[in-house]
Amino acid sequence: MASTFERRLTNCRHRLERSGGDLLVCVPSPNLTYLTGFEESPSERHLLLFVPRIGTPTLVAPKMYEQQLATIPIDEPPLEVRTWDDDENPLEEIRAVLEGYETRHGLEFAIPNGVGDTNSDGEAIDDDRTPGDGSILVDDRMWATISQDLRACAPDATFGLASDVLESQRIRKDDVELEALRRAGAIADRVSLEIRSRGEELIGTTESALASDIEERLEAEGAGKPAFSTIVAAGANGARPHHHSSDHEIERGEPIVLDFGAFVDAKLDGGTGRYPGDQTRTIVPGEPTEEYKRVHEIVQKAQQAAVEAVEPGVTASAVDEAARSVIEHAGYGDAFTHRTGHGVGLEVHEPPYIVGGNDRELEPGMVHSIEPGIYLDGKFGVRIEDLVVVTETGSERLNDSPRGWETGDGPSE
Amino acid sequence: MASTFERRLTNCRHRLERSGGDLLVCVPSPNLTYLTGFEESPSERHLLLFVPRIGTPTLVAPKMYEQQLATIPIDEPPLEVRTWDDDENPLEEIRAVLEGYETRHGLEFAIPNGVGDTNSDGEAIDDDRTPGDGSILVDDRMWATISQDLRACAPDATFGLASDVLESQRIRKDDVELEALRRAGAIADRVSLEIRSRGEELIGTTESALASDIEERLEAEGAGKPAFSTIVAAGANGARPHHHSSDHEIERGEPIVLDFGAFVDAKLDGGTGRYPGDQTRTIVPGEPTEEYKRVHEIVQKAQQAAVEAVEPGVTASAVDEAARSVIEHAGYGDAFTHRTGHGVGLEVHEPPYIVGGNDRELEPGMVHSIEPGIYLDGKFGVRIEDLVVVTETGSERLNDSPRGWETGDGPSE
Repeated sequence: MASTFERRLTNCRHRLERSGGDLLVCVPSPNLTYLTGFEESPSERHLLLFVPRIGTPTLVAPKMYEQQLATIPIDEPPLEVRTWDDDENPLEEIRAVLEGYETRHGLEFAIPNGVGDTNSDGEAIDDDRTPGDGSILVDDRMWATISQDLRACAPDATFGLASDVLESQRIRKDDVELEALRRAGAIADRVSLEIRSRGEELIGTTESALASDIEERLEAEGAGKPAFSTIVAAGANGARPHHHSSDHEIERGEPIVLDFGAFVDAKLDGGTGRYPGDQTRTIVPGEPTEEYKRVHEIVQKAQQAAVEAVEPGVTASAVDEAARSVIEHAGYGDAFTHRTGHGVGLEVHEPPYIVGGNDRELEPGMVHSIEPGIYLDGKFGVRIEDLVVVTETGSERLNDSPRGWETGDGPSE
Repeated sequence: MASTFERRLTNCRHRLERSGGDLLVCVPSPNLTYLTGFEESPSERHLLLFVPRIGTPTLVAPKMYEQQLATIPIDEPPLEVRTWDDDENPLEEIRAVLEGYETRHGLEFAIPNGVGDTNSDGEAIDDDRTPGDGSILVDDRMWATISQDLRACAPDATFGLASDVLESQRIRKDDVELEALRRAGAIADRVSLEIRSRGEELIGTTESALASDIEERLEAEGAGKPAFSTIVAAGANGARPHHHSSDHEIERGEPIVLDFGAFVDAKLDGGTGRYPGDQTRTIVPGEPTEEYKRVHEIVQKAQQAAVEAVEPGVTASAVDEAARSVIEHAGYGDAFTHRTGHGVGLEVHEPPYIVGGNDRELEPGMVHSIEPGIYLDGKFGVRIEDLVVVTETGSERLNDSPRGWETGDGPSE
C-alpha cells in the first residue's frame, strides 16, 4: 500500500499537471515536510526537492544528509537523491537536474509560457497560460538566495509559487493530521482546565512563572515543544495582543489572557509531521469589574456566533463578520484589532485566514482558529480561542474546556 | 552622536549608492536586526524595510507593530513607518512607497538597467550595470511569497540580493559586536572547563542529560538561549557530525564530542542584537584507545595550523587547506567530511565560509570558526573548534579552554 507520503507526492504531481506547471521546487519548509516527512531548518546550504510534472522527483542535498534522506518512505514514484560536498558547487547539480528533465522528458520550463504543451498522455494542456502562471513553482518560503540561483539556472523560465498547487492540497487535512490536531487540542484543554481550577492560588504568581508551568504541563500531558511562545498577560498587559509574559505578579480580580498550545507528532509511517494546539482562555482569580464581565460576555458571544457560522461554502470573511458584528453592535468594534482566525496544520499560521476581504469558501477538512478579542488600553484584554475543523455539515471544535472567566470550582461556561 | 543603527543605516546607503543599486528591501531577518535593532520572526504578514539610495527609509508593517517600531533608535535619517491593518491589502502600501520614490526622487528601479543614472550629487554612476546587478536588492532571506509580490509591484525592475551591499558591511564586526562575541566565548570556555573537570563522574550520564546540563550552565553563566541545539555525542555517535544527543549512557574510555554555545546580548543603545558562542571540545572520561589518542593529536595539530594560517589577505580556502593538509598527510583525509569553518555574527552560520574554493580574502574584524574533525564510522569522532577574530596582524582566539582529551585534573594542554 502506498505510504502517506507516496500518496501526497502523487497527488501533488496530478495537481501540478492540472495547473499547467512543469516543475515544483521545495526547500526545507512545511511543504517539504508535508511531501516527504523530512524536517530540517532552512539554511544557507542548498537542499532542494524537485518534483517534475513527469520524470523522477529528485533531492539535491548536502552530502551530510545522505543517510537521513535514504530513510524517506517513498519508493513509488522513486525518489532520486543527488548530494554535493562542501567544496563542490551545488548549482552544478541543480543545472544537471534541470537539463535532465528537459532532455529526457521534454519539460519546457526554461521556455516562457509554453503554449501548446502536452501532458504525459500527449493531450494538450492549458493553452491559456499567462506569464503569472509560471512553469517553475518555488516553495513559498524559499529564501531569495536560493530563488535567485534557480533563476540564474533557468533564465527564461516563468516563476510562480508552490502554494498555487500545494495550498489547496494541504488545506484539507487528512485523517492522520486530524487525529494529531484532536490530540493536541485535548492536551491544551486538560492544561487549561488544570490552571483554571487553581482559582485564587494564581494570585501572586508571575506571568513568566505561570507560562513556564503551562509549558511543562503540556509536555507532561504528552505534547512536545510549545507551538509558539506561551502568552500569559494579566491586567493591562492583556490589552496588548502580542504581549508574551513578564515579571508582573498576578493580582486579585485581574483578568489573565492565557494563549498556548504545543506540538504533537502525527502517527506517520516513517516520516515526521508535528501538529499544534492553539487555544486561548481569559480567566479571573477573584471577582472582576462589572465592565469586565460585560466585555467577556460579548467576546464569548462573538466567538460562539463565528463557530456557528462555519460550514462548507461559507466564506472566511463571513465567519470574520459573524464575530465582528457582535462586537461592533456592542460598541467595541475599534477594540477588536485583529483578524478572527488563521488556519493551522504543519504551520501554526497558514491558510485559511479568517479575515475581512478573504472570499475563500470553507471546505470540509479545513482547520482554523476562531479567536475574537476586545482590548481596552490600560485596562485589560479578553480573547477566547478554539480550533475548529470544518465538517460536511458545520464544524467540530477541537477545544472544549470552559470559556467563562470564573476560576476554581465556580461556574465557568 | 549618531546611534549604532544610524551609523549602520547611513553606511548601508553609501554602499548601496556605490553599488549602483536604487533600493534595498529587508524582511524580518538578521539584516533587519543589524540595520534597525528590531528583531522578529519571518511571517506571512508583510513587514518590509525599504532603504532607498535617496529619499526616506520606510517601514511597511502590520498595525500591531506600530508601538514597537516607534522605539527604533533611528532619527537621522528619519525613518517613516506606514502600517496596514489585517483587512487591508499590504501591496497597496508597498506600491505607494515605490511610487513615492519614483516620483519624488526619480529612482528608476522600475526601469531595467538604468544606464545613465546619476547619484544624489548628479554624477553619473556605474554605466556598465548588467542585468545581474539589479536595482532592487532584496533580503537574502526574503520568502518567495514576498519577493513575488515585490516583482508584481515593480514588474520591470531588475532584482539582486541585499548581501551584495550588506555582506561586506556585516562581515567586519564593530566594537560592540566584538565585545559581545568575546563575552559569549568566555562563557562557553567556563562551561567547557567545568564539564571537563568532572572527570570520571561523567560516566553513566546520558548524552541528553549532559546536554540539558550544559544549556542550564550557559544560562547560569549569563548567556541567553542556546545558539544551536547542543551536541553531546559519545562513542560511535561522535562519528556523525550532526548527531545531537540521545539516551545513550556515556561509558568509561568513550570520547565525547561537546559542541555548544549560547547567545549574549550586545550592549546596544535601545536596539537588539544577539551574538553566539560556538565551541567544540572532545574529551574522554577514563583512558581512550591508542588510536583515539593519535587521532586527537592530529585534529589538534590541524586546528592549530589553521589558526596560525589566519591573517589579513589570506584566502578562506588557504585556511581550510592548512587544516586539511595536516589531516590528509596523516592519512585521514576521507574522514574529514566537512568544511573547516563558518563566520559568526547575528547568524551562527554566515560568511566567511572557510572552505575549499572560497577565494575571499580575510580582513580584520571578520570572526569565524575553525573546527576540523575526523570521523571514524562505528568508532568515534573528534572535533576541536574555536572562534577567531582576524586582527591586523593575525588572529585572536575567542575560546581558550584546554583542547586535549584529558578530563578531571589531568593534563589537558
